Amino acid sequence: MTAPDLHRVPEALRALHPGADDADVYARVIWSVLTEPGDGVAGRLISAHGAHAALERLIRDAPGDDAASPAELSAARARWMPRLDAAPVAQALERARRIGARLLVPRDPEWPTRLDDLGAHAPHCLWARGDVAALSDAPAVGIVGARASSGYGDHVAGELASSLSGDGVTIVSGAAYGIDGVAHRAALSAGGRTFAFLAGGVDRPYPTGHTELIARIAGSGAVLAETPCGTAPSKWRFLSRNRLIAAASDATVVVEAGARSGSLNTAAHAAALGRPLGAVPGAVTSASSAGCHRVLREFDGVCVTGADDVRELLGLSRDANRRVARAGGDELVRLLDAASTRVPRSVDELARRAGLTPDAAAAAIGLAALDGELERTAEGWRRARSR
Amino acid sequence: MTAPDLHRVPEALRALHPGADDADVYARVIWSVLTEPGDGVAGRLISAHGAHAALERLIRDAPGDDAASPAELSAARARWMPRLDAAPVAQALERARRIGARLLVPRDPEWPTRLDDLGAHAPHCLWARGDVAALSDAPAVGIVGARASSGYGDHVAGELASSLSGDGVTIVSGAAYGIDGVAHRAALSAGGRTFAFLAGGVDRPYPTGHTELIARIAGSGAVLAETPCGTAPSKWRFLSRNRLIAAASDATVVVEAGARSGSLNTAAHAAALGRPLGAVPGAVTSASSAGCHRVLREFDGVCVTGADDVRELLGLSRDANRRVARAGGDELVRLLDAASTRVPRSVDELARRAGLTPDAAAAAIGLAALDGELERTAEGWRRARSR
Repeated sequence: MTAPDLHRVPEALRALHPGADDADVYARVIWSVLTEPGDGVAGRLISAHGAHAALERLIRDAPGDDAASPAELSAARARWMPRLDAAPVAQALERARRIGARLLVPRDPEWPTRLDDLGAHAPHCLWARGDVAALSDAPAVGIVGARASSGYGDHVAGELASSLSGDGVTIVSGAAYGIDGVAHRAALSAGGRTFAFLAGGVDRPYPTGHTELIARIAGSGAVLAETPCGTAPSKWRFLSRNRLIAAASDATVVVEAGARSGSLNTAAHAAALGRPLGAVPGAVTSASSAGCHRVLREFDGVCVTGADDVRELLGLSRDANRRVARAGGDELVRLLDAASTRVPRSVDELARRAGLTPDAAAAAIGLAALDGELERTAEGWRRARSR
Repeated sequence: MTAPDLHRVPEALRALHPGADDADVYARVIWSVLTEPGDGVAGRLISAHGAHAALERLIRDAPGDDAASPAELSAARARWMPRLDAAPVAQALERARRIGARLLVPRDPEWPTRLDDLGAHAPHCLWARGDVAALSDAPAVGIVGARASSGYGDHVAGELASSLSGDGVTIVSGAAYGIDGVAHRAALSAGGRTFAFLAGGVDRPYPTGHTELIARIAGSGAVLAETPCGTAPSKWRFLSRNRLIAAASDATVVVEAGARSGSLNTAAHAAALGRPLGAVPGAVTSASSAGCHRVLREFDGVCVTGADDVRELLGLSRDANRRVARAGGDELVRLLDAASTRVPRSVDELARRAGLTPDAAAAAIGLAALDGELERTAEGWRRARSR
């Protein structure tokens, strides 16, 4: 094992990032190899010292400080040092170069700034296939759900993604089988933009059955990962990846999910970030909606019944104050109760039966007649039969 | 038309109420004939002066006061005076006596005090068949929903009512076809108590197809109405009746409802009273669940997936703080990611692959081995295949 030379930038990096000679860029690549996703100690050190200086301090065994206590630093060094090797760093860069991937760091103009809300748990850098800039151009919704989706879930996911992406909303998901795949495909079919966050390297499309779909996503929006090229997906990386879907989206919607679905983890991240969160309900007798009902109950998620509800979550709807409206005035309801389709009645008689004053009854009769609800006969007023 | 003589109590009333000679009781009967349900002006006058004095003031044309302005009083007089007739009062009492109904006024020990939260809109009196006292003995839940229910809605309503009434929870509803009827029947089958509020007089079972069910409800709990015997149900009276279901229940659950179902009106009353409110979700493609989804969205109703959720609404569950729990420790997840079912690996190798310190990896290996997730071989640790 040989520690990478921080001052000798590998040639492959030049193909991945225009600012390859910047010490910060290469240091972030190394950090992404050293750490598992979401390592908060690394995040704090990078934030306090900069990626390059934090790495130099690590190599020369600098003492703990405000960013990390001696004990935290000691535990972290024990995690990181076994990975401080030039070979996997060079391999990751070479794999990325070979597939034409790009590298993004937080100061790049294309960096999705929504991720900054993750604070110390934000990714050190992103590896990307496609055009990442578009992710920040439009409102984005995360549409996630079960791999083992039902026809119902597929239908709803497709309708939501199709309607929203047709409106210019970006669809973010995880490229998995089931709901994720349906959401990406519907966005592509609608000519919209869609982005996928992967749990492993962007050179290893996963699941392999979605290799072609993932290539199409990269051609529409982008496929992104915080793990270096060559990294295999793992359960931890899936859980960590879910926080990127939640953080990259203005709102997250769980379309269908079992009671222990990974989508609940994405929902938990959205809730922790204070982002709007919705779930599509289903029959309470259906196990594949049980996770959605948990989102409604336990995360106080919003009940999403269609694309308009998602627009409202995104703040795109002017219809946010819909309220159950009374069908008509109270007095009109009572007056129509008092009228008969058979027996014509006088204004006074209708007033008495309705418990209204004769004046109020006369006014209500006028409105009802205008609406065609009542008709005048020689003997008085009666309800129109045709209604 | 002859105004009733407030000082001559009709004989029939003695059969309906033990305190028939109390001027307040007879006055409340007359008020219930004069007014349509929920008449707030009448409520305020009765509250300010007492039912008897308020009626005397009405008859002698007393001026407006703090309880009702001259304009309100003038409008109210115009509504009420056409009904101030001894004949319908006597008829209502006679009809009630004939079916063995009882009369209840707010100071009676059996009065369901939950109704007092309606303030000026509380009923002046209740006409009842059955044992009203039991309504105050136990927690009560309103279970309401569409007349045109689906098999799904019927199934869920039956499960909820059966489980809850088996637990001693009282089931309150409106005796309508569909969800109401299923809820009452399930409570009766479970040997529980159930109560129905009708929109017309308790001597006129409505719908007529539920005449026998309504008789069985009266034999279990009670059938109640604020409208005098002989009164026909009307749209206004249904809407007003809904507030009694909401007010008489500790919590209200809408099981299945179209987007314009009358059950939304019951839900609105429960929300206005600040009572816990829930709705059972269904497929968003099902029109018969659209009203439930409106309750979840627009009234901030709680998503009810089963009887346990209703117990929680009623405050009967100790399980109110269920939260999505992490399946296991983060480190254990990462360690199992790093282990292979085929290739045995050393502690150091597992630590490096998992991004853990050797100590943390060793601890996680110990836990995983105890759980049977990992097994030791001569070459190191590997994942147990049988899991």
